[in-house]
Amino acid sequence: MAVVSLERTRTPTNDLDQPDIFARHESDIRLYCRRFASVFVSASSATIVDEGGREYIDFLSGAGALNYGHNPEPIKRAVIDYLSKDGILHALDMHTVAKRDFISAFYETVLRPRGLDYKLAFSGPTGTNAVELAMKFARQVTKRESIVAFTNAYHGVSLGSLALTGNRSKRAAAGICLPGVARLPYDGYLGAGFDTAALFERLLDDEGSGIDMPAAVIIETVQAEGGLNTCSAQWLRRICETAKRRGIVTIVDDIQVGCGRTGTFFSFEGTGVEPDIICLSKSLSGIGQPFSLVLIKPELDCLPPGVHNGTFRGNNLAFVGARAALDYWSDPLFQRRLEGLCCVLRERFDAIAREFPTLQTRVVGRGAVLGLTWSDATLARRVSAAAFRRGLIIETCGARDQVLKALPPLTIREDELDSGFKRLHGAIADATGNPRKANRQGGQHD
Amino acid sequence: MAVVSLERTRTPTNDLDQPDIFARHESDIRLYCRRFASVFVSASSATIVDEGGREYIDFLSGAGALNYGHNPEPIKRAVIDYLSKDGILHALDMHTVAKRDFISAFYETVLRPRGLDYKLAFSGPTGTNAVELAMKFARQVTKRESIVAFTNAYHGVSLGSLALTGNRSKRAAAGICLPGVARLPYDGYLGAGFDTAALFERLLDDEGSGIDMPAAVIIETVQAEGGLNTCSAQWLRRICETAKRRGIVTIVDDIQVGCGRTGTFFSFEGTGVEPDIICLSKSLSGIGQPFSLVLIKPELDCLPPGVHNGTFRGNNLAFVGARAALDYWSDPLFQRRLEGLCCVLRERFDAIAREFPTLQTRVVGRGAVLGLTWSDATLARRVSAAAFRRGLIIETCGARDQVLKALPPLTIREDELDSGFKRLHGAIADATGNPRKANRQGGQHD
Amino acid sequence: MAVVSLERTRTPTNDLDQPDIFARHESDIRLYCRRFASVFVSASSATIVDEGGREYIDFLSGAGALNYGHNPEPIKRAVIDYLSKDGILHALDMHTVAKRDFISAFYETVLRPRGLDYKLAFSGPTGTNAVELAMKFARQVTKRESIVAFTNAYHGVSLGSLALTGNRSKRAAAGICLPGVARLPYDGYLGAGFDTAALFERLLDDEGSGIDMPAAVIIETVQAEGGLNTCSAQWLRRICETAKRRGIVTIVDDIQVGCGRTGTFFSFEGTGVEPDIICLSKSLSGIGQPFSLVLIKPELDCLPPGVHNGTFRGNNLAFVGARAALDYWSDPLFQRRLEGLCCVLRERFDAIAREFPTLQTRVVGRGAVLGLTWSDATLARRVSAAAFRRGLIIETCGARDQVLKALPPLTIREDELDSGFKRLHGAIADATGNPRKANRQGGQHD
Amino acid sequence: MAVVSLERTRTPTNDLDQPDIFARHESDIRLYCRRFASVFVSASSATIVDEGGREYIDFLSGAGALNYGHNPEPIKRAVIDYLSKDGILHALDMHTVAKRDFISAFYETVLRPRGLDYKLAFSGPTGTNAVELAMKFARQVTKRESIVAFTNAYHGVSLGSLALTGNRSKRAAAGICLPGVARLPYDGYLGAGFDTAALFERLLDDEGSGIDMPAAVIIETVQAEGGLNTCSAQWLRRICETAKRRGIVTIVDDIQVGCGRTGTFFSFEGTGVEPDIICLSKSLSGIGQPFSLVLIKPELDCLPPGVHNGTFRGNNLAFVGARAALDYWSDPLFQRRLEGLCCVLRERFDAIAREFPTLQTRVVGRGAVLGLTWSDATLARRVSAAAFRRGLIIETCGARDQVLKALPPLTIREDELDSGFKRLHGAIADATGNPRKANRQGGQHD
Repeated sequence: MAVVSLERTRTPTNDLDQPDIFARHESDIRLYCRRFASVFVSASSATIVDEGGREYIDFLSGAGALNYGHNPEPIKRAVIDYLSKDGILHALDMHTVAKRDFISAFYETVLRPRGLDYKLAFSGPTGTNAVELAMKFARQVTKRESIVAFTNAYHGVSLGSLALTGNRSKRAAAGICLPGVARLPYDGYLGAGFDTAALFERLLDDEGSGIDMPAAVIIETVQAEGGLNTCSAQWLRRICETAKRRGIVTIVDDIQVGCGRTGTFFSFEGTGVEPDIICLSKSLSGIGQPFSLVLIKPELDCLPPGVHNGTFRGNNLAFVGARAALDYWSDPLFQRRLEGLCCVLRERFDAIAREFPTLQTRVVGRGAVLGLTWSDATLARRVSAAAFRRGLIIETCGARDQVLKALPPLTIREDELDSGFKRLHGAIADATGNPRKANRQGGQHD
Repeated sequence: MAVVSLERTRTPTNDLDQPDIFARHESDIRLYCRRFASVFVSASSATIVDEGGREYIDFLSGAGALNYGHNPEPIKRAVIDYLSKDGILHALDMHTVAKRDFISAFYETVLRPRGLDYKLAFSGPTGTNAVELAMKFARQVTKRESIVAFTNAYHGVSLGSLALTGNRSKRAAAGICLPGVARLPYDGYLGAGFDTAALFERLLDDEGSGIDMPAAVIIETVQAEGGLNTCSAQWLRRICETAKRRGIVTIVDDIQVGCGRTGTFFSFEGTGVEPDIICLSKSLSGIGQPFSLVLIKPELDCLPPGVHNGTFRGNNLAFVGARAALDYWSDPLFQRRLEGLCCVLRERFDAIAREFPTLQTRVVGRGAVLGLTWSDATLARRVSAAAFRRGLIIETCGARDQVLKALPPLTIREDELDSGFKRLHGAIADATGNPRKANRQGGQHD
Repeated sequence: MAVVSLERTRTPTNDLDQPDIFARHESDIRLYCRRFASVFVSASSATIVDEGGREYIDFLSGAGALNYGHNPEPIKRAVIDYLSKDGILHALDMHTVAKRDFISAFYETVLRPRGLDYKLAFSGPTGTNAVELAMKFARQVTKRESIVAFTNAYHGVSLGSLALTGNRSKRAAAGICLPGVARLPYDGYLGAGFDTAALFERLLDDEGSGIDMPAAVIIETVQAEGGLNTCSAQWLRRICETAKRRGIVTIVDDIQVGCGRTGTFFSFEGTGVEPDIICLSKSLSGIGQPFSLVLIKPELDCLPPGVHNGTFRGNNLAFVGARAALDYWSDPLFQRRLEGLCCVLRERFDAIAREFPTLQTRVVGRGAVLGLTWSDATLARRVSAAAFRRGLIIETCGARDQVLKALPPLTIREDELDSGFKRLHGAIADATGNPRKANRQGGQHD
Repeated sequence: MAVVSLERTRTPTNDLDQPDIFARHESDIRLYCRRFASVFVSASSATIVDEGGREYIDFLSGAGALNYGHNPEPIKRAVIDYLSKDGILHALDMHTVAKRDFISAFYETVLRPRGLDYKLAFSGPTGTNAVELAMKFARQVTKRESIVAFTNAYHGVSLGSLALTGNRSKRAAAGICLPGVARLPYDGYLGAGFDTAALFERLLDDEGSGIDMPAAVIIETVQAEGGLNTCSAQWLRRICETAKRRGIVTIVDDIQVGCGRTGTFFSFEGTGVEPDIICLSKSLSGIGQPFSLVLIKPELDCLPPGVHNGTFRGNNLAFVGARAALDYWSDPLFQRRLEGLCCVLRERFDAIAREFPTLQTRVVGRGAVLGLTWSDATLARRVSAAAFRRGLIIETCGARDQVLKALPPLTIREDELDSGFKRLHGAIADATGNPRKANRQGGQHD
């Protein structure tokens, strides 16, 4: 693999120490850099290089923001071209050719082929901002306040979205109450036999339940931060049907698992569900550019002009990238390869589960967002740390970081995938003190 | 002037009609495109070109996000270089060389020369997100909830920031209560003779005032959205001293008027005030890239790792742009020119006020964020519309759009400035039916 | 039975019409008078007389505020004596002999014999005010905000208590969000096999559940407004133990079912549970006087003097009544009779269930707060209306008024009880069109 | 004077020590008993007797709940009669003869003669509950949330009312945010020259002010807890007119200064103002019984039956007392005497101000709610303590207890008034170390 090399600017830092300048000048709130303590310099496809020249396989992909890998050639080229021609870069929410091209391509490539009818609302370029706008739409349409969110949900950390998010320490950081949300158990939370969608219906129909008639219900089809919990198509349908019959707006937050992560562009494809609102972000721009989008049924498009604004709604570089990224979706080969990747990932993870039988490994997630959880809840963290030492970037999720979560680029090369899994095997062996098997299968950092 | 021309992709649209594709597919929440109804294609310096080939002088500058103009060559070059070398584009909050270079340059160019000691917290890349993080810091540090915000304040529209924002229609769009904010009159709001900073002190010291002891007070030194209201240095000092004596965190929201807009990098320079927290965004990246920054006194840097996260905190293209933009600030010539621009703008606006004596024009704002307001509050809107017809993009602000606000690039060329003001003269004449004088001074679109 | 007769002041009104003066001058918010549409004039024991001279058996007892019946002689005498001697009637929270006598008797009669150690906090004289004070104690002690309340809970309608109350229409009347409460399923709400106390524990231990670590959990051992749902001793113990291990304050709201309603003074006696806070009101004064009391463990008595005040905390007539009412509890005979009443009520209701087998009658509640619910949820309302026509006052409860709830005075005479049940039988027959059986058993109004 | 003597039940306690039983068993939240540390036993007119047989003149009158004095004969007699006849004591909100008689008398005696048209809504029997209900009416009518309250307002401490109350320590005790209130400066708060009613209008008309269009504005014409601040008739009119033009509900909280305290039944009589809602409580029952009332314009009577309920809305003993108390208001002599009392009180306080010229005494309040404040803000507390030692009960108010507040019964006898003022003179002398003058005028406790 030919990694573009950047001039090394300083001697490599010790992985375990915080490099001085960050420790001195950056707020302690920083997180990922503590777990993956290198200074990175360049990247391509699923390979990322630190300033010491060391290569890492990236199974994190910007937490789902780099589904097409790092610096994907066609997208990068489109972006450089646009820059070179002095294309409009920043335009608030004024019309630009780049924006029109994106809208048009999104309609033709994503919406029309799927028979979907939505208008595009450009919120600020972050996922949390898209969620905030979705909440406003829902509350305005229904003139109700409460929004149903689920256990272990993650929808962002600005105050509106944070009310929906389940994580206790993130919530506590608000320092103020987070009103307007009713919390219900996600699919499976009350055990395999308990239909929490039926409970949703019952709580709505019980005038004394204490659950106010909600404006909306917001759903992640895969709780990617919350521990790779997935809901069944049946559950999703029942929630949405129950909601629609009562004039409750249905919102699918597809920020982390949309844009192909589950094997289809939207994560709910094939379920028969058509949400009233869909939130997208992360990989939308194709190249890691901040960009978010709220899709809304035309009949719910009720907010007056300008009431939800923001400086960076017109990130035209993101429009250009997003326009180019949609080309992947016009390519049948890309779709077939994506299906293949999903299968391969499943097989690989199942193999790990079989390989380490004593660890009581469980494979979780679906599509190309899969993970491992063990009876020992601390193992995921230790495997992640060991993986990084072996040159694999893979994060944990869940409220106690109890799940190891793999989000490789959807376009990962076979050699990268192989290498990544070798390192993962090795890391599990390292973390569990099971060296023999590990030596057979796990690769050392090369 | 040689504007880079892009291939025209379709026939020019009528300025007054919404181009079809936007009207059909984009949410009605869009705003600026209704006022400046063209489809723009490229831009350079202060000149922006629509797909019909028509050129506009830009006195809006992305609402302050383009202080260095459109596509500033040195920044653009740095960004293209970085892209070409497969530099890391997206890295969550992991360390990268691009990030370190930015932090280092920001420290050396901005903080150290001004004797300022702050840590850099990278929130999500929007201004509203920076404000949300600042609120969390303040509430966590003080274990108090309430934050004092001022009449006509604008701090963003996500639910936390929106509680601080004064605009009634934006607030109403929340559809839920916005707790935790006490509203006080801004400098001058109660009339010239009334010191609202003294009132702030009195309300804090009156145990029965109903104003809870606040966590923070958040201040715009110029209320750029709120109508170009400015506060005096004396008022700012008194507010901040009053706050500090009571353990109240002081936050300056320098999102719109920082990065040089008032003639200095920070808008509060020269006042003797050193806020506990500073919010920056808009022009930080130098090239319109989404990017925000919270500067916080090291002793207040109290939030645990990861509690305020977000996908796009590591927009490395923005780091690269921002690093290059800081070079302007190492250049003494830039600073002198900026001072010159501020003087020239003042003179130009004063001249307009003199030229149209019957309109009771008042010049408002300071530095390079100046505007005009008239006894007829509807005039600003009409002048803005007339200006657009003459090829000048200039927006309005204030709760009733009663102020015409000019935010030209700080690097605007002299010919662009001249042309812009000619068009502005003409527009005022158009809007007021004062053609004779207008013909003498105002330029038609060329 | 000798009912004290008052001079009739006007001709009897038609039961079905709203008497004019009320309709004209009283707010439409009035409720019970619509269901029991007479104008009442006097009462004694369980018999109440309207101005037409008609007698009603009272199975409502002021919604639990008249456990000792109407105008119980010993209490009434004590109150008249006190009035006659110009005893202090109103004293804010100043010390009076009447207050001291009550405190002393409460300690000696209620607390000491049960080995309980609580301090008495006198909130305003309403149940909702007692709950508001309990919430303040809990939030102050723990410095947390959230309070766990259960499905179908009823704790009052002032804004703090209303947040705890489940009823949707009452909540909607607030017209503002009701923050700071997490709603959990009550014992049995998720079906017989599902232990919702275990769920409580799990949600607390799941850092991602979205249930913030609460300040308190507030429990009704019988949900008297919510539909006569009861919790098991085991469930109550598990909830309380789970809470205590996490520093969560346990509050038992014994407002409706305390003061003997379940057969013991406190409803939780015999469960082994000792709540941190107990709210009492309703029958406390013995004679229907407004009076409330918060019992709090001495170590949680943390609020500074005066922060929760209120004009009528020192209702000395209530102290005098309450002092006299405690004499019942020193009398072993009263306790034995109370046990007997509980048994008799159970038998009577079981008999009804057997008598009308086709109605799928279910007996709910416990002690002396029992009721009936039928497969046809509208039946309770119809039976209540029919009962009133037959001279029995008995109300409904539950979110859909689906439960017929009997709260006879604990001191009801045998003849009154007989008469009441005869009328009830008749009413069920009336409401179900089952006249034959009804004629045999149910009494016509005599 | 012949004070009815009660059997002494124990040896007198030392005034300065907390009697044991209270200290051991009553919550530390108790307040007045700390300042007036005796155990009281009986009372008549304005004279109150402790268990040591010591008599006190009462210038506190239950904080305004005893406007007709302690145990007023005609009211007491009516109440004893009613009790003796087994009149209904507790009836929820069912119709009773006692209630009808009260409604009828209230209409004939209070409303009709003043040309006022209101419906009577019976909230729970506390002032705070009346305010909670008023807030619900206003929010329901307008479908808005925010309510404007003023600096130093006091409206109660349940969570809804507490949001309106200004006192910081009472607010802090909530332990949770208090949303939905905008705080504005009361008449005079910004200095004599500043019309805060004009500011109210301006903030409403400024779409950017941050003051949301309110549901209601709630006003005390005299801030009796807040420091005896009074508003002018002109100010009150302007606030109400401004509100009405914008569909904002006007609420007068007449709980402490209604029922004659300012010289007329309602405190706003003579101003031309007719509020949409009036809250009454305190002296309504005439005999210190818990009782509250919300008067509402018929066209705003919008809440559905039962949504604001409460056990003690039907305190029939209070209806009987209130009915009897209204007889005072049919008596022209009572009204003349009340006017006389107001004049005498004013003269007496003015005389004190003249007598102690060095203390910079200011007389505050109006009607029969008058007080003194001194340049030394601690003096009021010291005078109150000294007065108690001399046998006068008089409390302080204001956020720092800086105002000595006199609320003598409106029916106080001349000898009681004389004696009270003698003691007050003496107390001021004691507190200021000015014995000579004090000896001339101030009485020792006799």
